[in-house]
Amino acid sequence: MSKDYKALKVAFLGGVGEIGKNITAIMYGQDILLVDCGSSFPTLDTPGVDLIIPDFSFLVENEKHIKGLVITHGHEDHIGAIPYLLKEIPNIPIYGSDLAVALINHKLVERKVNTSKLNVVKNGDKVKLGSFTVEFVSVAHSIIGAFALAIQTPAGLIFHTGDYKIDYTPIGNAAPVDISSFARIGERGVKLMLGESTNVEKPGHTISEKHVGKTLEKVFLTNQDKRIIIATFASNVNRIQQIINIAEKAGRKVAFSGRSMINISEMALDLGLIKTDRKNLVDADALKDYAPNQVCIISTGSQGEPMSALTRMANGEDKVVVTKDDLIVISSSAIPGNEKAIYGVINNLYRRGAKVLYGSLEELHVSGHACREELKMMLSLIRPQFFIPVHGEYRHLKQHAKLAMDLGIKEDNILVTDIGNVVEIKRNKIMLVEDIKAGAQFVDGSNNISREMIKERKQLSNEGVVVIVCRINSLEKSLRNDIIIEPKGIKLDDSMIREIEITTMTCFAGLDFSKGFNKDSFIETLSKKVKRRLQKYINQKPVVIPIIIEETPDEM
Amino acid sequence: MSKDYKALKVAFLGGVGEIGKNITAIMYGQDILLVDCGSSFPTLDTPGVDLIIPDFSFLVENEKHIKGLVITHGHEDHIGAIPYLLKEIPNIPIYGSDLAVALINHKLVERKVNTSKLNVVKNGDKVKLGSFTVEFVSVAHSIIGAFALAIQTPAGLIFHTGDYKIDYTPIGNAAPVDISSFARIGERGVKLMLGESTNVEKPGHTISEKHVGKTLEKVFLTNQDKRIIIATFASNVNRIQQIINIAEKAGRKVAFSGRSMINISEMALDLGLIKTDRKNLVDADALKDYAPNQVCIISTGSQGEPMSALTRMANGEDKVVVTKDDLIVISSSAIPGNEKAIYGVINNLYRRGAKVLYGSLEELHVSGHACREELKMMLSLIRPQFFIPVHGEYRHLKQHAKLAMDLGIKEDNILVTDIGNVVEIKRNKIMLVEDIKAGAQFVDGSNNISREMIKERKQLSNEGVVVIVCRINSLEKSLRNDIIIEPKGIKLDDSMIREIEITTMTCFAGLDFSKGFNKDSFIETLSKKVKRRLQKYINQKPVVIPIIIEETPDEM
Repeated sequence: MSKDYKALKVAFLGGVGEIGKNITAIMYGQDILLVDCGSSFPTLDTPGVDLIIPDFSFLVENEKHIKGLVITHGHEDHIGAIPYLLKEIPNIPIYGSDLAVALINHKLVERKVNTSKLNVVKNGDKVKLGSFTVEFVSVAHSIIGAFALAIQTPAGLIFHTGDYKIDYTPIGNAAPVDISSFARIGERGVKLMLGESTNVEKPGHTISEKHVGKTLEKVFLTNQDKRIIIATFASNVNRIQQIINIAEKAGRKVAFSGRSMINISEMALDLGLIKTDRKNLVDADALKDYAPNQVCIISTGSQGEPMSALTRMANGEDKVVVTKDDLIVISSSAIPGNEKAIYGVINNLYRRGAKVLYGSLEELHVSGHACREELKMMLSLIRPQFFIPVHGEYRHLKQHAKLAMDLGIKEDNILVTDIGNVVEIKRNKIMLVEDIKAGAQFVDGSNNISREMIKERKQLSNEGVVVIVCRINSLEKSLRNDIIIEPKGIKLDDSMIREIEITTMTCFAGLDFSKGFNKDSFIETLSKKVKRRLQKYINQKPVVIPIIIEETPDEM
Repeated sequence: MSKDYKALKVAFLGGVGEIGKNITAIMYGQDILLVDCGSSFPTLDTPGVDLIIPDFSFLVENEKHIKGLVITHGHEDHIGAIPYLLKEIPNIPIYGSDLAVALINHKLVERKVNTSKLNVVKNGDKVKLGSFTVEFVSVAHSIIGAFALAIQTPAGLIFHTGDYKIDYTPIGNAAPVDISSFARIGERGVKLMLGESTNVEKPGHTISEKHVGKTLEKVFLTNQDKRIIIATFASNVNRIQQIINIAEKAGRKVAFSGRSMINISEMALDLGLIKTDRKNLVDADALKDYAPNQVCIISTGSQGEPMSALTRMANGEDKVVVTKDDLIVISSSAIPGNEKAIYGVINNLYRRGAKVLYGSLEELHVSGHACREELKMMLSLIRPQFFIPVHGEYRHLKQHAKLAMDLGIKEDNILVTDIGNVVEIKRNKIMLVEDIKAGAQFVDGSNNISREMIKERKQLSNEGVVVIVCRINSLEKSLRNDIIIEPKGIKLDDSMIREIEITTMTCFAGLDFSKGFNKDSFIETLSKKVKRRLQKYINQKPVVIPIIIEETPDEM
């Protein structure tokens, strides 16, 4: 971190693909304020990885300057990496809504991380952290307890929208969202706005959460003979509340299915964020005591996650057995990359005879992110001097920047950034000043594994592996002829096995022993030659692992 | 194949996910007619696989009954497996349009497969193949030379739509599409219709290909200062023709980029399917002789394929260097599963400063498949007695079946099938009669690899591999202490290496030599114990490959 004490800086630290989402550092003088600390889900492109978290190098180096971590909301991509951060840097004070803090606490307990510095804040609360005074401003989003942040710094006011949408008819349980609060912040004069960009490609205005309720009401009315199973995001407490209300009206008991659905609903009930008579809820094990049309199951798995409740149902591996008496409603839309998995689940539910309603057919879900008209409204209310689009892939940020220009913000006052960038605002200019070590860490089991290891794994999976074990006597310059060839994930017939044996022998015969036996160089040459042979004969390039046993004189 | 000579049967043989797409067998008596023989592209879920082709077991068993292969159109999922089929069963007569046959021929030459039985047919042609007389009926699709098939059998008329859309204003080069031809076929009385289902979830009517031309014209007009690079499917000859026409009007030369784009455009020019003055075309190497706004590049890579021209441009690895003077137009929509790759390419093009236009922003592509209103029209014109929805995932077929019911086809006369099903029509009933070996073969290099091997590869990539080499003297019942541990794709620190050594020694010490040394059982036990240890200590489950060298007495 540079020693320029007067500049306001913003660093975009974590994430894969999306910029400024997982973790953002706001810096003034020596003080650092962190916004969010999230994780990303692994994909088929990161084999064996359990979780992707931000690279904390920069924070570890600057540990003593960190004044606090403020959480916009409790989604995984905003809180999922907190246990890992606290393991490296304990004692960071953390501030978030009741639900966000409950979710964080659950994670910390699960990962056996202790902290006494979790603080619940509510709409309008102000917290002073070093040079920063952070005001939490309620926004509507697909999780309740979501905040935008008005951060007063000695260099001016920063407004961070967090993830948000404008919902004029929100569900009752959420903290009240007051659109004019944004106007009041705008009137105070905002130096810098960080604005979320997820839905910048979507025209118009996001539909209200209430709309989903109306669709679901119709679904219940027209499927009175069916058991109804609804899959949605466990964190979408408002959605769950709506489903409970509708089920109650229809005289159906509600059961929760899937680990995170059970956990989060329990949490939300405890916090009073879901309001219902507990006797409307039944355990999934008690479902057999009810007729199909007397129950509604709210389940995880709306993204086709392999181990989720809905996927298990689709595969016939869950205690909830899906039949033609079931209606399954997927009340979510696909996060890009999950399409194939979701459709796979839907196909298998159909194969079990069930009726399935999902995105392409009905309006069963609304987004939690502001569309273009909402983005325009927010920019117009806040009227910032400087603007950095955040929370999106590079293409989203570029388009959000263009939108801001269309609204009259000067091109020079807008900066599109990338992961690892540090932005400085000084003397009424915004500019990139340096790049820092940032990006992703890959968590596998209890290890953090490197990009190189992921590359190695992909190579293993693309072509398999061939282990060659041979015993060499370097004194006698001899190679035993019982060479062992062990393939995995690749098909080698006898002639190819023989070919590898011959290659090994030829390779050994070509060695120059005048300077002694160089094992590493032999391994390299052998590996290269075997690969070349396999490519020539069977057009494959497996990972080759030669293991050379050098026999000592006493073994002779 | 059953010996029931009087029944009409349809078997759905190939494919992954989509049913009845890659290859369908129509059978009457002893005669078999094949419709299409396509391949699927591998995904991240099939690591290292080059191509997915149908399982040919059933066809190999019934080789002598195969009367011919008729091709609906030249897309990969309809012709891509032909070289592999001909390697197993040579001499099948093949019938397709001029472009389809040219594309097949290109494949056969590339794969060094010879056949003298490729036949070009055109709209209205009839071909007798055993008990079947096949009439080729032109349809509009996203490739020219696409046919529906009217197949006269002794048991009645079958109508197979192939892939199609209804385009009232098609591009000139295509064979004329006469909607009333479908009505005439319907009037002949159709026993069975096989109808494509791809776009059954899309309401309304597909937009005409001409519409894309109009959008692109506007794009050229409003970007006169830019070099224009358009990525689209190489096989979409009509799209390419439109781009050439627009470029010509704008005074721009056209260059083709990407192997398949160069191949197919050359083919289409030779066949007279693309009409232009050759002097309007320039080689990509000659682009430097022109100002940016004097050229237009038509490129592959619209699906974000890793080795395609556009991906190389986005990564700065192509001879076409992308700068802020470029406008890139993605004139296609994402095939499900390709979204992340495409967006990755778009992000990187933006990072190079280029302007990018793509699906979410403009109408730059139209589908080649019939939407709901077109599907309804086709069913209403054909009015089949029996209906089998095809060309779609299971969910699409279910919905297409429901659509057919809404149009008055009796539920009992509609059958939703799955890969491997055989359908029989007999005594005015349609039913599933048996299942046959069908599904996918995975081609990797020159090998066909099994599902088990793909599972093995995934396991390798998820957790890596640990090779353990130890030398055992079973006579002396001793284990040498120089155990070699070699990890790949997994991180093992010294203490874990030591742990594996100790596990190996303990495992050996526990052996009962009273019945001699059982190597296989030792390998199994060791592998299991090491996995258990690694899971316990570092929460990972790699593939463990123990290699046991049994030392013979003379080695002592």
